Amino acid sequence: MSTVHAYAAEKAKAPLGPFDISRRTPGPNDVQIDILYCGVCHSDIHQVRDEWGGAIFPMVPGHEIVGRITAVGDQVKNFKVGELAGVGCFVDSCRECAPCKSGEEQFCQNGMVGTYNGRDKEGQPTYGGYSTQIVVDEKYTLHVSEKLDLKGVAPLLCAGITTYSPLRHWKVGKGSKVAIVGLGGLGHMGVKFAASFGAEVTVLSTSAGKEEDAKKLGAHKFIVTKDPEQMKAAQGSFDFILNTISAQHDYNAYLTLLNVNGTMVVVGVPPEPSLVAAFSLIGGRKSLAGSLIGGIRETQEMLDYCADHNIVSEIEMIDIDKINESYERMMKNDVRYRFVIDIASLKK
Amino acid sequence: MSTVHAYAAEKAKAPLGPFDISRRTPGPNDVQIDILYCGVCHSDIHQVRDEWGGAIFPMVPGHEIVGRITAVGDQVKNFKVGELAGVGCFVDSCRECAPCKSGEEQFCQNGMVGTYNGRDKEGQPTYGGYSTQIVVDEKYTLHVSEKLDLKGVAPLLCAGITTYSPLRHWKVGKGSKVAIVGLGGLGHMGVKFAASFGAEVTVLSTSAGKEEDAKKLGAHKFIVTKDPEQMKAAQGSFDFILNTISAQHDYNAYLTLLNVNGTMVVVGVPPEPSLVAAFSLIGGRKSLAGSLIGGIRETQEMLDYCADHNIVSEIEMIDIDKINESYERMMKNDVRYRFVIDIASLKK
Repeated sequence: MSTVHAYAAEKAKAPLGPFDISRRTPGPNDVQIDILYCGVCHSDIHQVRDEWGGAIFPMVPGHEIVGRITAVGDQVKNFKVGELAGVGCFVDSCRECAPCKSGEEQFCQNGMVGTYNGRDKEGQPTYGGYSTQIVVDEKYTLHVSEKLDLKGVAPLLCAGITTYSPLRHWKVGKGSKVAIVGLGGLGHMGVKFAASFGAEVTVLSTSAGKEEDAKKLGAHKFIVTKDPEQMKAAQGSFDFILNTISAQHDYNAYLTLLNVNGTMVVVGVPPEPSLVAAFSLIGGRKSLAGSLIGGIRETQEMLDYCADHNIVSEIEMIDIDKINESYERMMKNDVRYRFVIDIASLKK
Repeated sequence: MSTVHAYAAEKAKAPLGPFDISRRTPGPNDVQIDILYCGVCHSDIHQVRDEWGGAIFPMVPGHEIVGRITAVGDQVKNFKVGELAGVGCFVDSCRECAPCKSGEEQFCQNGMVGTYNGRDKEGQPTYGGYSTQIVVDEKYTLHVSEKLDLKGVAPLLCAGITTYSPLRHWKVGKGSKVAIVGLGGLGHMGVKFAASFGAEVTVLSTSAGKEEDAKKLGAHKFIVTKDPEQMKAAQGSFDFILNTISAQHDYNAYLTLLNVNGTMVVVGVPPEPSLVAAFSLIGGRKSLAGSLIGGIRETQEMLDYCADHNIVSEIEMIDIDKINESYERMMKNDVRYRFVIDIASLKK
């Protein structure tokens, strides 16, 4: 066991502050990682505020983790001390159910073990990446290339895979007409991936001011969703919509933008259920689907793709003592496009 | 032009009564059909009562039409006088848009011409199958086998294709675990098709009394949706759900019954939008989709499949003067499983 510095919320809605946690001594299959950067995901806020229920406190958030390996267990085959590594949204799963066996551990029927706000197989609470070190089974550890700017890699572990996976699953590529709804942490990665896969990409945003950024990120077109004329002109024009909005909104308005046989995938979770009119789906054999991060195999595939295509997240670096302020700014969409904590600031 | 007997509603919510209409003299590409039977679809009620808006009165409903050909235009290639023929939900479309060209005329971008409550290319109102004769372009006319009981064929033109098409589109077959929600005119056809395709079929119904019928129709299992224990036990167990309910209901309760990557297709249209929680879709990459009848090519494929596999609708025959009473019984789900009008009763 080792004691490591972290930042935790002691109870729901409490601000985060310094907190020491214990990490286990690496077991035979474990990788010990000295954390360098950790991305700040909107779901960190939801969980710290117990908005999804069942939160475990004290809570150390953070599931967009990159760092350097400082120790490995004697059975570890795929990782070496000194290499870069990443950890995403989960650190274990049952390994025996159909989804686990097919490499989609995010859908583990017995419940994946969240990187934080979860309980491991011994029933102990898990602590995330707002900390200086983490110990993870190598099966749930990712390889990270030395080629990329490491700060921008951290958000790939959640924002990256959350957008990469549905674009791949629904076979977005050359010839696809794709809309990305919402240009935040998820949306900006969706634009980068969809453009990289060869699709024609349109960003839909409430903020007219984001058009220039959208195009820099690779979008070909931009629609201000508050403009009824632009929305009307876009009816029936997309094969695929990646909807990253987590605020309450009208799904039907976006479903009308789909072409026949089109699919809208939601990856954001509005606080309340949304209304869906059957006619919105029936009139064009349309689908409204959901997608949740990705399995370990696909997350590795995504990281490798990013290394090959020089894709990272656009980030704003913060020291750990700015985390509470960052949450407030995220609530106002005031970040372009992901806060990443410099974990060096936690080691001081 | 010929004058033919029909039954019409003169205004929204008015009872249907005798009414004479004109049918055009067959043009070079037209088929003239002496109507023998016409099924009574729930959407007849919606439209007669103008519940979907924009209804055209007087209205002669009916889009599950079978009869015998009495004349053909001189350019007609695929139909002969004396043959059986069928007409479904539409009698024309633009023929030029992408959906029309791909044989999915039901999604015509310029609007298919409904068999009734529509306007043809000359702007004239269309009249449906509650009449003794209809004249239709051969491209929108279906071949009907002499092998089947013709009364049970009529409902295939809407209830049949509405359930056949999504089961085919989502590749339901051997190894599929399928739920059919609602055992009415659509649902009972869904059971027959899904079982015929080799799927394991479970019927979900509010009416415990329908279990015996469900199993006679081919279902392997039966769940009473009002029983929370049965619903809980079925969580995550279906690959595909065909939801035929047109009353208001909670989609989320059914989405939890889907396995990872499962799809629920709605073919019923509840009067108001339904609530959908993003978590219901995200936690298992699930899809909520819609499907609308089928194109002419697929409708013919369905009719041929039925002839080859001896599939027809379960029907209750009525004379035309019982139509208003039948609507009332349908509103109480008191029909097993489709009313079919004996059009001979209109010729008297």
